[in-house]
Amino acid sequence: MAQRKIVIVGGVAGGATAAARARRTDEHAEIVLFEKGPYISFANCGLPYYVGKEIGDRSALLLQTPESFRARFEVDVRVLHEVVAIDRAAKRVTVRNLETGEVYHESYTALVLAPGSVPIRPPLPGIGLPNVFTVRTVPDAVAIRELVERESPARAVVVGAGFIGLEMVENLAGLGLAVTLVEKADQVLPPLDPEMAAFVQSHLEQMGVEVITGDGIAAFTGNDRATAARLESGREVEGDLFILGLGVRPDTRLAREAGLAIGPTGGIQVNERMQTNDPAIYAAGDAVETIHLVTGRPALIPLAGPANKQGRVAGANAAGDSLTFPGAIGTAIVRVGSLVAAVTGLSEKAARREGLKVYTSYTLSGDHADYYPGMQELMTKLVVESDTGRLLGAQVIGANGVDKRTDVYATAILGRMTVDQLANLDLAYAPPFGAAKDAAVVAGMVAQNIRRAALRVITPEELLGRMEAGEELQVVDVRNPYEYDMGAVPGAVNIPVDELRSRLGELDPSRETVVYDRTGAMAYVAARILAQRGYSVSSLAGGYALFPAAEAVRAQRTL
Amino acid sequence: MAQRKIVIVGGVAGGATAAARARRTDEHAEIVLFEKGPYISFANCGLPYYVGKEIGDRSALLLQTPESFRARFEVDVRVLHEVVAIDRAAKRVTVRNLETGEVYHESYTALVLAPGSVPIRPPLPGIGLPNVFTVRTVPDAVAIRELVERESPARAVVVGAGFIGLEMVENLAGLGLAVTLVEKADQVLPPLDPEMAAFVQSHLEQMGVEVITGDGIAAFTGNDRATAARLESGREVEGDLFILGLGVRPDTRLAREAGLAIGPTGGIQVNERMQTNDPAIYAAGDAVETIHLVTGRPALIPLAGPANKQGRVAGANAAGDSLTFPGAIGTAIVRVGSLVAAVTGLSEKAARREGLKVYTSYTLSGDHADYYPGMQELMTKLVVESDTGRLLGAQVIGANGVDKRTDVYATAILGRMTVDQLANLDLAYAPPFGAAKDAAVVAGMVAQNIRRAALRVITPEELLGRMEAGEELQVVDVRNPYEYDMGAVPGAVNIPVDELRSRLGELDPSRETVVYDRTGAMAYVAARILAQRGYSVSSLAGGYALFPAAEAVRAQRTL
Ligand SMILES: Cc1cc2nc3c(=O)[nH]c(=O)nc-3n(C[C@H](O)[C@H](O)[C@H](O)COP(=O)(O)OP(=O)(O)OC[C@H]3O[C@@H](n4cnc5c(N)ncnc54)[C@H](O)[C@@H]3O)c2cc1C
Ligand SMILES: Cc1cc2nc3c(=O)[nH]c(=O)nc-3n(C[C@H](O)[C@H](O)[C@H](O)COP(=O)(O)OP(=O)(O)OC[C@H]3O[C@@H](n4cnc5c(N)ncnc54)[C@H](O)[C@@H]3O)c2cc1C
Ligand SMILES: CC(C)(COP(=O)(O)OP(=O)(O)OC[C@H]1O[C@@H](n2cnc3c(N)ncnc32)[C@H](O)[C@@H]1OP(=O)(O)O)[C@@H](O)C(=O)NCCC(=O)NCCS
Ligand SMILES: CC(C)(COP(=O)(O)OP(=O)(O)OC[C@H]1O[C@@H](n2cnc3c(N)ncnc32)[C@H](O)[C@@H]1OP(=O)(O)O)[C@@H](O)C(=O)NCCC(=O)NCCS
Repeated sequence: MAQRKIVIVGGVAGGATAAARARRTDEHAEIVLFEKGPYISFANCGLPYYVGKEIGDRSALLLQTPESFRARFEVDVRVLHEVVAIDRAAKRVTVRNLETGEVYHESYTALVLAPGSVPIRPPLPGIGLPNVFTVRTVPDAVAIRELVERESPARAVVVGAGFIGLEMVENLAGLGLAVTLVEKADQVLPPLDPEMAAFVQSHLEQMGVEVITGDGIAAFTGNDRATAARLESGREVEGDLFILGLGVRPDTRLAREAGLAIGPTGGIQVNERMQTNDPAIYAAGDAVETIHLVTGRPALIPLAGPANKQGRVAGANAAGDSLTFPGAIGTAIVRVGSLVAAVTGLSEKAARREGLKVYTSYTLSGDHADYYPGMQELMTKLVVESDTGRLLGAQVIGANGVDKRTDVYATAILGRMTVDQLANLDLAYAPPFGAAKDAAVVAGMVAQNIRRAALRVITPEELLGRMEAGEELQVVDVRNPYEYDMGAVPGAVNIPVDELRSRLGELDPSRETVVYDRTGAMAYVAARILAQRGYSVSSLAGGYALFPAAEAVRAQRTL
Repeated sequence: MAQRKIVIVGGVAGGATAAARARRTDEHAEIVLFEKGPYISFANCGLPYYVGKEIGDRSALLLQTPESFRARFEVDVRVLHEVVAIDRAAKRVTVRNLETGEVYHESYTALVLAPGSVPIRPPLPGIGLPNVFTVRTVPDAVAIRELVERESPARAVVVGAGFIGLEMVENLAGLGLAVTLVEKADQVLPPLDPEMAAFVQSHLEQMGVEVITGDGIAAFTGNDRATAARLESGREVEGDLFILGLGVRPDTRLAREAGLAIGPTGGIQVNERMQTNDPAIYAAGDAVETIHLVTGRPALIPLAGPANKQGRVAGANAAGDSLTFPGAIGTAIVRVGSLVAAVTGLSEKAARREGLKVYTSYTLSGDHADYYPGMQELMTKLVVESDTGRLLGAQVIGANGVDKRTDVYATAILGRMTVDQLANLDLAYAPPFGAAKDAAVVAGMVAQNIRRAALRVITPEELLGRMEAGEELQVVDVRNPYEYDMGAVPGAVNIPVDELRSRLGELDPSRETVVYDRTGAMAYVAARILAQRGYSVSSLAGGYALFPAAEAVRAQRTL
């Protein structure tokens, strides 16, 4: 066979990985990688931490340079070279050298497209002002850090409360700036369900961040530089530095112009082999649409894990191998101050959007055995398919061990496991690391109990709705009096769980009853006591730990 | 139906959990729990940390008291009451009140046996001396701590290097004692494979612990108190305090005497419902044998996670419900100083003992992205079924994130997932928490490459054996010269991976070749370069990171 020539467009997660794997697959191929920016193989995900100086040196962000990549992988890396067109019939690309302006052709036997995504920049007045930034490239981060060092700005406004927005908030706040976060949705972290995201919002507020939700950006005002963000409501938020974190869209210009199929979500369409509808062209990374392994349907999942895996598969196959990438489930995590929030699989709202019949379960548990020092709590929400008990999604919030449980749920989701299997997971336990019943096992047990009708739950949203509608529910707070005194569900009576059997006379068995404690565990015990005495009783999902968050969501909605 | 009467023997993980769940299942049953010791619901697993004062107060170990248990669960708890016989025909147990000596009967409709296990105490001379301890109960731990406080002993000898032994070593060393660890097997932590356990041994030695392997305990010498341990080799090890950590055996006396079926492993035989061969008698915890979910065969897995889950199932079913416990996989973890070691599923030696056809893969990876500060390395060993690619076991050693990966592997094993699925896990990634290719994903990729014959590996054991047998292998160290100079495989030539293509003239393509670097990653790149040029080449499994550990194992074996 003649020598294979593999051309790769884009030199970061998808492209550089494809090049490395293509080389490992075929030592004799000619491999050319084009990158329009000045760097390849950089750590996009590290950019916020570079701004925040947790990562001190810019060089730490550069995993490979063109020179190191050439030495190790014999890849002809051409930075500051943009591929501007694909001629599929001739199997060649048109390239512009951005330094010299020279335009030339490069032929290929296989082409890998990994152009990534572009940050969304709506055409708003003032968006081009020099102190309004997106965060996508090393030069972006360098410019932000330089501005901070040069001008010591006092106030930053971050627009968009997704993962990157929150990372920027954390890092700018860490530098001592007063930060305002603006988000058009009713909640921060839109991939999470609102009541879970409410924990993050209240933590941000405790950190001193001003959080504005339900209001979008309309314009940036100022002359040479932006001095304020004008919101859709008309409100003005002053700042010295403005960050856009409005999300990304797949960069499909080249593919589109070359007539490659674009999927319903707007990403390049590929099969399991990461092959486009042109068998000589592969694509990987943020630019493609991928199969969501819970829904089985195409989705955009612009994250580094999928991009790297897709690049590996595309590179292997472009070089003659046959690997597959089945899809992803959108697992993502973010640290905000001392709080960590993560999601994997479907959120409840995403599941309902998909028309799936699901139920949820909330549990508050320790990250490790409570008798061992340093225990911190985790709030977990599971999304479970009603008919099968299959785990479809999970959200976890807490200080420690959030990543661990999220990864366990992600693995369980990919293994198509049920909550019964979750309840029986055999996880590593010694006192510093977990509990005899790990948080993930407890989450499984509770979801199992709900499924088996051993436990009936009512969401705080439903409870609030019914109370507002004037229903006279009998609400029983089974915590200790001192907890009750510090704040309780309106109208609740207080009977500690350990006194419940002896104080039944204080309750009316004919009234529909809701019990709660802080975590849900004692409310469950109470619910069992009452249910077996003929009460129609539900336990308040998430207990009093979730209730204020749910109240906040409701207040936000009814604004 | 008449009121159910459930009698439970044993009041800790299995028994107390069974009682709690039985009450939640049947509010109207009479439930009596007998515990021969002074406490119920205590945290056995916390005992070593109580000795080491990480857990300050004894009360932290007591999750429930008889009073609190009665109040919450209306269980009639009788501590210092030993069940001494079961009359299955009459459905009653004989009980001795250990305070008064009174003996009486208690009838049951359902009986739950959760007597746990007993620490192994071989009948050795001097084993009864007062400063020779096992660590099973709160009084055991209190006695050890009191001795330490009273006598400020200088030297401790811990016999047995299993999980509990190592926890005691860590905690006694933390108190400032000079600790000697004695283990009859050739390695510490026998549930792990020897080369992985060697990391733990060398860390113990760095902590100043004297480790003696391959030598068993023969006697304790001294008059009123033990002053030395005499080993089988004749060696004497002096000490002021002696701890036995020789493992446990299921406490089956009651069951045996009552004619209940005992399984081949010596534990009480139960079905998935935790029911013995007498349908009115359930059993749970360390006393039962359980199904190992990898082998499908009975096994003893005396750990708190299974005990709690089994107790839950036994309690539920004894109260008329129908839950199942399918089995466990022996996931376990231990912290020793700043090192953490864990295992889940089958070790390689266990798999081979079972006659399974397996291969292994080793990977050294960061616990999170290396560009983010604080990265620490993890050494991972996977055990994979050759024919199917199914993950059967994993061992992980490192400073951080060991528990997370272990739980991911445990979940994958229980989900019967393959290494291809592992390579595609969609795990939570942000720089503080993981990497775009998480350690678990990399482990999956490497195991996948081995399986697909993209990578041929040779274990250090095999390499050492063949070198000793006089085979003239061409060994190439592809690290940088300064790494090579600090220590290398005997006879290896040094050609850094990035110079390999240009220095091929220095190698003999006709000789069988072994390449290595520190982690395995660059050796893989080198192996691909050479293999595609016709070399018969293998990569040294685990790289130079594993090599010294494997050398140590070999040296130990050939002693
Ligand atoms: C600030 C930030 C933080 C992030 N944090 C996380 C995180 O914590 N976890 C996570 O999973 N993901 C995170 N991501 C997302 C992750 O970085 C992306 O999913 C991943 O980089 C996508 O890889 P890619 O190769 O598809 O695209 P990119 O990494 O964007 O690379 C595409 C490259 O192609 C080049 N290119 C485009 N068109 C052309 C052309 N025509 N010719 C030549 N070159 C071209 C671009 O210049 C670019 O360098 C973060 C992203 C950002 C920006
Ligand atoms: C020091 C130590 C550390 C440990 N660390 C860990 C760890 O980190 N992780 C982990 O997973 N596991 C650990 N374990 C193991 C774990 O504690 C056990 O697996 C678990 O406690 C077993 O529960 P069980 O109910 O079967 O037995 P046990 O907890 O032993 O309880 C059995 C109880 O039954 C009572 N009893 C026995 N016979 C009778 C009778 N005839 N009448 C009345 N009462 C009776 C006994 O007095 C005992 O209290 C540790 C164990 C110890 C001792
Ligand atoms: C730097 C870069 C080019 C490396 O590409 P790569 O060589 O494919 O990836 P890694 O360095 O992670 O190594 C993984 C490869 O080494 C192998 N490997 C890793 N550890 C190994 C070990 N101990 N033994 C054997 N093989 C090992 C893996 O199997 C994999 O090879 P494969 O794909 O052929 O199966 C690419 O990861 C990159 O550009 N990254 C930066 C961009 C980025 O990811 N940004 C977004 C996140 S911040
Ligand atoms: C203290 C002890 C009696 C508690 O037993 P328990 O009530 O069954 O167990 P937990 O307190 O862990 O609670 C688990 C139960 O509450 C439920 N639960 C936990 N959190 C919940 C929540 N947020 N909402 C609803 N239910 C919850 C679980 O589903 C489970 O109930 P189920 O078994 O009926 O499904 C028992 O765990 C014990 O004795 N432990 C100490 C001994 C021990 O484990 N030693 C070895 C390890 S150190």
